[in-house]
Amino acid sequence: MSGVHDRVQAVLRGEVRAAARLMRDLDDALPSAREALAALHSHTGKATILGITGNPGSGKSTLTDQLIAHYRGEGKQVGVVAIDPTSPFTGGAILGDRVRMQRHATDEGVFIRSLATRGNLGGLSRSTMDVVRVMDAMGKDLVIIETVGVGQDEIEVTRAAHTSIVVVVPGLGDDIQAIKAGIMEIADLFVVNKADRPGADRSVQEIRHMLDLFRPSTLRGPAASTEVAAPRGVAQSALGGWEVPILPTVALQGEGVAAVAEAVEAHGAWMRERGYWEARVRERARFELMEALQDVLVRRALQSLGGDRGRLDALVARVATREIDPYTLAEEVARGGLGS
Amino acid sequence: MSGVHDRVQAVLRGEVRAAARLMRDLDDALPSAREALAALHSHTGKATILGITGNPGSGKSTLTDQLIAHYRGEGKQVGVVAIDPTSPFTGGAILGDRVRMQRHATDEGVFIRSLATRGNLGGLSRSTMDVVRVMDAMGKDLVIIETVGVGQDEIEVTRAAHTSIVVVVPGLGDDIQAIKAGIMEIADLFVVNKADRPGADRSVQEIRHMLDLFRPSTLRGPAASTEVAAPRGVAQSALGGWEVPILPTVALQGEGVAAVAEAVEAHGAWMRERGYWEARVRERARFELMEALQDVLVRRALQSLGGDRGRLDALVARVATREIDPYTLAEEVARGGLGS
Repeated sequence: MSGVHDRVQAVLRGEVRAAARLMRDLDDALPSAREALAALHSHTGKATILGITGNPGSGKSTLTDQLIAHYRGEGKQVGVVAIDPTSPFTGGAILGDRVRMQRHATDEGVFIRSLATRGNLGGLSRSTMDVVRVMDAMGKDLVIIETVGVGQDEIEVTRAAHTSIVVVVPGLGDDIQAIKAGIMEIADLFVVNKADRPGADRSVQEIRHMLDLFRPSTLRGPAASTEVAAPRGVAQSALGGWEVPILPTVALQGEGVAAVAEAVEAHGAWMRERGYWEARVRERARFELMEALQDVLVRRALQSLGGDRGRLDALVARVATREIDPYTLAEEVARGGLGS
Repeated sequence: MSGVHDRVQAVLRGEVRAAARLMRDLDDALPSAREALAALHSHTGKATILGITGNPGSGKSTLTDQLIAHYRGEGKQVGVVAIDPTSPFTGGAILGDRVRMQRHATDEGVFIRSLATRGNLGGLSRSTMDVVRVMDAMGKDLVIIETVGVGQDEIEVTRAAHTSIVVVVPGLGDDIQAIKAGIMEIADLFVVNKADRPGADRSVQEIRHMLDLFRPSTLRGPAASTEVAAPRGVAQSALGGWEVPILPTVALQGEGVAAVAEAVEAHGAWMRERGYWEARVRERARFELMEALQDVLVRRALQSLGGDRGRLDALVARVATREIDPYTLAEEVARGGLGS
């Protein structure tokens, strides 16, 4: 227990090494790490969580880099969780070096952690939430979750942020189709990066047009909002009358970055005024609880098989040979009918 | 039980309506639907499952459409699962109409089903696997899973196919970065679509170069393969000496599509010869079992709370107010300590 106490204190003091080790141990679901995270839980809830998402090549990492610099200039502590597609060969995040953020590598006030979409059971979302909580407990004022792509897990993670930023570039063409479908609703804030390229104005107009289409006025206002917002994860901002800003930036030159930070601030204030901030906190808590539940339950069920890989393989073989279907077998495992 | 028997027979006869209703009921996790799927399980395992993935705008849907036409020309039955980013407002798949595939809408030998990344608990992968199994039981010779993006779930789903096709377009620029990281390993087959555009040859060379980088010779050969392939989901093709073809197509004109179908055939034959086909079948069975296990366990745990949304909300509130951390609470729920 003293080991747990010491590492908790070290994380609360903001020590990078202790935090990094805790994150690794959480990834491996070590009981002692979960004990430490439990002790840290009451110290979390102070950080503002930003989600930044966009297609590869949109310049999200550059924008993140510039936002780090901006917040550091205000004396704030910043944490970044960069979620990357990965290679099972290296086991690590290939984009993990995040070249454009390297200049902050020696800054004690910045903690950048790359997470790999490794395909672990329930891995990505759970790991992300764990890392965010550790950074929060470390005293980071802002935690930025940066994701690539429009996958289900990635959207869930971004959705759980206080403010979600979607980054696009001019001349999207078909990309617009994907954006409007998957991403439109989670955006509290659009950034049209590389706005010195031709077509930037048109992109802003297109996004504005789509926002009007996808967020009809009938859905606005608090009454409609509470009604429509019932299912988990519907972005409150989309429903409660928040006018989504569409901000041009040239992130490489730092242009427009201050305006993005201002919009984040304004969105936060708007959310707090209306009680939506707490709604998002609950939303994230729900997501965290569900992820934890999946993890804990599956882990227990596999342990009930004796933690023996051979026994699991034998069950898999029964499904593969069509002897039994997966749901029926899962029910058997759940009932403990195959327990040791 | 007779209801279940009747619908099982209808699905086995390939009746579209019965199959569509079963898919909907499976999505809602109705017990009678799972019973039907269990009865169908022994009739599955005959279809060849193709995964097709690529960024928005790569022309995957057009390629899928052309492949459907090709296989129909050979008298084969085809099923398609199109996984789309969605809007929580409409609740459905926005790209779901899949305009380019509409010409097959009246063809009885083609069954196209759109699935939405709705953010349901454990929804996407599980639904996809369910739909694939129903199509397999219906007697579809080929089932094509088409996904957008590079999300974790999407990669998992594609990985579970017999043959995975990654579609790219010339002039990728930064996209290449994302592709090499997340997608490179799952590709059994690359398609450079829109190959009449400038830069197609260069794209082929770049992909070849990346394949050489990412699939070092030390990983090739059966000995290395069994060793490295131990973790679930590592594409066998990447390890066992399969020379990944990089095929140029102009899908809109149907150019190169026959060559893609040939390569799929060749890959299947290669897999069967080396026993890798069975390895992928086991891989998919493992994935299906894990998805089913998550679903069954979480469902049971939530039912143990009395299926009462208010009680779940109260638990969420305890996490949100930092009274208790998610893992500790999840353990309590798992132990049934909060059961009714």
